[in-house]
Amino acid sequence: MVILFDEQLIPRNRAYVDIEDRGYQFGDGVYEVIRVYGGKMFCKTQHLSRLEQSAKEIRLHLPFSLERLDTLLEELVSQNRLREGTIYLQVSRGTAPRNHPFPEQARPMVVAYTTEAPRPLQTLREGVRAITEPDLRWLRCDIKSLNLLGAVLAKQKAVDSGCQETILHRDGRVTEGSSTNVFIVKDGQLATHPADNFILRGITRDVVIESAHELGIPVTERVFSVEELFRADEVFISSTTMEVTPVVSIDGRKVGTGSPGPLTRQLQTAFEKRISHSGSPS
Amino acid sequence: MVILFDEQLIPRNRAYVDIEDRGYQFGDGVYEVIRVYGGKMFCKTQHLSRLEQSAKEIRLHLPFSLERLDTLLEELVSQNRLREGTIYLQVSRGTAPRNHPFPEQARPMVVAYTTEAPRPLQTLREGVRAITEPDLRWLRCDIKSLNLLGAVLAKQKAVDSGCQETILHRDGRVTEGSSTNVFIVKDGQLATHPADNFILRGITRDVVIESAHELGIPVTERVFSVEELFRADEVFISSTTMEVTPVVSIDGRKVGTGSPGPLTRQLQTAFEKRISHSGSPS
Repeated sequence: MVILFDEQLIPRNRAYVDIEDRGYQFGDGVYEVIRVYGGKMFCKTQHLSRLEQSAKEIRLHLPFSLERLDTLLEELVSQNRLREGTIYLQVSRGTAPRNHPFPEQARPMVVAYTTEAPRPLQTLREGVRAITEPDLRWLRCDIKSLNLLGAVLAKQKAVDSGCQETILHRDGRVTEGSSTNVFIVKDGQLATHPADNFILRGITRDVVIESAHELGIPVTERVFSVEELFRADEVFISSTTMEVTPVVSIDGRKVGTGSPGPLTRQLQTAFEKRISHSGSPS
Repeated sequence: MVILFDEQLIPRNRAYVDIEDRGYQFGDGVYEVIRVYGGKMFCKTQHLSRLEQSAKEIRLHLPFSLERLDTLLEELVSQNRLREGTIYLQVSRGTAPRNHPFPEQARPMVVAYTTEAPRPLQTLREGVRAITEPDLRWLRCDIKSLNLLGAVLAKQKAVDSGCQETILHRDGRVTEGSSTNVFIVKDGQLATHPADNFILRGITRDVVIESAHELGIPVTERVFSVEELFRADEVFISSTTMEVTPVVSIDGRKVGTGSPGPLTRQLQTAFEKRISHSGSPS
């Protein structure tokens, strides 16, 4: 197993970072998780361009070009013979004596590795249970940064309750899940939080919106309340690893009939088509 | 130079962490910075007890007792022959395959190292310039966690403006500085934000409040506005490394006369007395 470490592919067990890497002391960095289906990165361009955007927002300069990064990731997948799984990719601001302001000289540190993972077929089929919690995170959730403690604590609460996801809200307005975007369906209409500073604009979220347009399902990016969430006919969450996952109960209450709904199923099917059409395995 | 790494003192250049340490990928950990004067840790008990409290808030179990940590830190200072400087101490939730919920088996990772640093005599004497910025951080600033990107970006804005600190406010209510607590003086009265979830309860902040009581200076823990900040007779910031530092201008406007004020000077003197009385050098 090799890992991308700075600009080189090295054995996984030789990859260690300095304790004064700013990723370690400040969470000063950004990341992406890219899904690999049939040996091929799904929505690669979108992920790399979002990485570039996150980096720009925190004024972190990638140490080499996106084209170079693309080549290195392809090489990583190929050398690890990854067919079904994920790439975790992160860039920190690099190593420097600890001090809050940006260091003058640090070289940003790129790390990427692969993990084998089948598609989550059972949860895709059966759906997941969720809880709701106040959203305590910072006001720049549009940046995919390493400051994930709020998300970790929220996700852990779901696990503690025997659930799989925590749906967050600010003063009763639903933002997103701890690691997913949230969609509701009511009277045949789809709604999800606008892509502003309160949520991460998920790549899968974009794919869902695009698919809805193609299928003629009306979709609105708007703020909706926890009450609307509870009254929805269907609820689903989307993310790179969870794809389009039905939510069948929230805070112990059934969503709709308590089974995945028809629009969710339509969007899942559309998503699967995109996966299988995403090109021939490399 | 040795470093505390888990439970051992090892050479600094052998201290590296795994890229799947949760501190690196989630900022999932807590920390302290402890000042060393004359070879002796200042307010050691308070720092260790705050570390324990932060860890508890994020449900992280320290891998060994505070007493053991205390002994190891004393040994660290002694082996590095540190006289004037700081100890940086952090505990992450440990290394585990990346996944948001707490890992079942990871051993939390303790790291601590020393840095030589003289007291910041020039800024203590002359004061610093500050700017104001909206506080974008999460709603658990009472936890001294590794999620510091908001603080980093705020501090960098100060540096970009040729200033030394950024004073943060939520909708016009002053919370704290990017790495300090903020005090104002008006008509002989001292005020600082209450120690709730919006600020970190600084050890130096507590010392200042205690000193004010001893000196008979009225001090109130209350929310104050950016307008009050601008109208204050004196403003100062406090932190472990900056001690009690006067703020002489904010957003380019003079604070009071533009020179450090008399109450700030009194509290600085009181603080210095505590340093020199904190025990004989080890």
